[in-house]
Amino acid sequence: MPVPFGHIPIFTVERLSTYIRTLRQAKEQGEKFISSEEIALRNGFTSAQVRKDLSFFGSFGKKGLGYNIDLLLESISKILGLDRRWKVALIGLGHLGEALANHKGFQKSGFDVKAIFDIAPEKVGKKYNGIPIFHVDQFPKKAKAIGIDIAMIAIPSHSARETIENVIKSGVRGILNFTDVSIPAREGIVIKNVNIASELETITFYLARGKH
Amino acid sequence: MPVPFGHIPIFTVERLSTYIRTLRQAKEQGEKFISSEEIALRNGFTSAQVRKDLSFFGSFGKKGLGYNIDLLLESISKILGLDRRWKVALIGLGHLGEALANHKGFQKSGFDVKAIFDIAPEKVGKKYNGIPIFHVDQFPKKAKAIGIDIAMIAIPSHSARETIENVIKSGVRGILNFTDVSIPAREGIVIKNVNIASELETITFYLARGKH
Repeated sequence: MPVPFGHIPIFTVERLSTYIRTLRQAKEQGEKFISSEEIALRNGFTSAQVRKDLSFFGSFGKKGLGYNIDLLLESISKILGLDRRWKVALIGLGHLGEALANHKGFQKSGFDVKAIFDIAPEKVGKKYNGIPIFHVDQFPKKAKAIGIDIAMIAIPSHSARETIENVIKSGVRGILNFTDVSIPAREGIVIKNVNIASELETITFYLARGKH
Repeated sequence: MPVPFGHIPIFTVERLSTYIRTLRQAKEQGEKFISSEEIALRNGFTSAQVRKDLSFFGSFGKKGLGYNIDLLLESISKILGLDRRWKVALIGLGHLGEALANHKGFQKSGFDVKAIFDIAPEKVGKKYNGIPIFHVDQFPKKAKAIGIDIAMIAIPSHSARETIENVIKSGVRGILNFTDVSIPAREGIVIKNVNIASELETITFYLARGKH
């Protein structure tokens, strides 16, 4: 029996998001069914792990046949909240901001970047990639008018804490934070901190070990 | 007693990388000691979690005083392999590649982007941000000559698998993969897959739940 969603480990959720990519790729390659072994193999997980992750949500597979890709895609999409579209705001149009505004993977997954916020006078009032650029001070008003669900924060670290507090006060409940400042989650707000140097540091941890 | 490094959970390693940022920020604010409670509070972990993570590596703290920030920084840096500098190559100079080539957090953590690889004739042979741009075909030769430790992959997904296989064949042991294609780890190679749309999907998982 499926468990209540609140009890699903965050790492299972992260793997589901990986599975969805694997399923889309298998589908593009013309496949209709896929085994837990195949999903595992493509991602370096064990097939037991894959089966365990999917078992949180009920019973998807058929013995011998594997998983029906279309059905599993639909189910995982629903689980991840991807059966609807989400309105995203981008705060900070520096180099990373530009990369985010151009990221092709967002639309496919149901994320529409609806507004960009910056403080540079030469950017505010213009459009980037067809997306209007507003001054950060306008965030509360614009976020409400547009109905922003998630804000991506790609600004220098020194103003991160204040900006994120303002975003939360504006009623936006999802935050993807790319700054160096790690912001704790709180009741009703979902914050994901992504730090690119940290990703490199988990690599060097293992590389340094290998040489010892 | 510290446990062998191979037994440290990946999530502990990821949190260490967060702790190092917290310690640097506390140091910049003029602090000399920090408690596990303070580290926990700044990042939304529990102090028991912080103490447990640090206990893998021996005994750092003093009752009542907390942790000596300088000593803890030095110890965690060593643990994460940051007591030396690492040579990084960037493959793919699109929007994300440009953001990576400009990322200020790398140098501070000991990562030097030494070479960029792309296939566009108008980029190859030039420099970006002072870093030379080579054709991807030259990767094996250049990687060896420069002594590249880690390759960051920021290219379109359709050529991801082939490029990453070539990087591995060239003897590079660390890979940070930003493409949509998840590549399994293998003996002696450390691969970290980072997918930005996936980060948003773990947010919507929780946001969608909250509305049910």
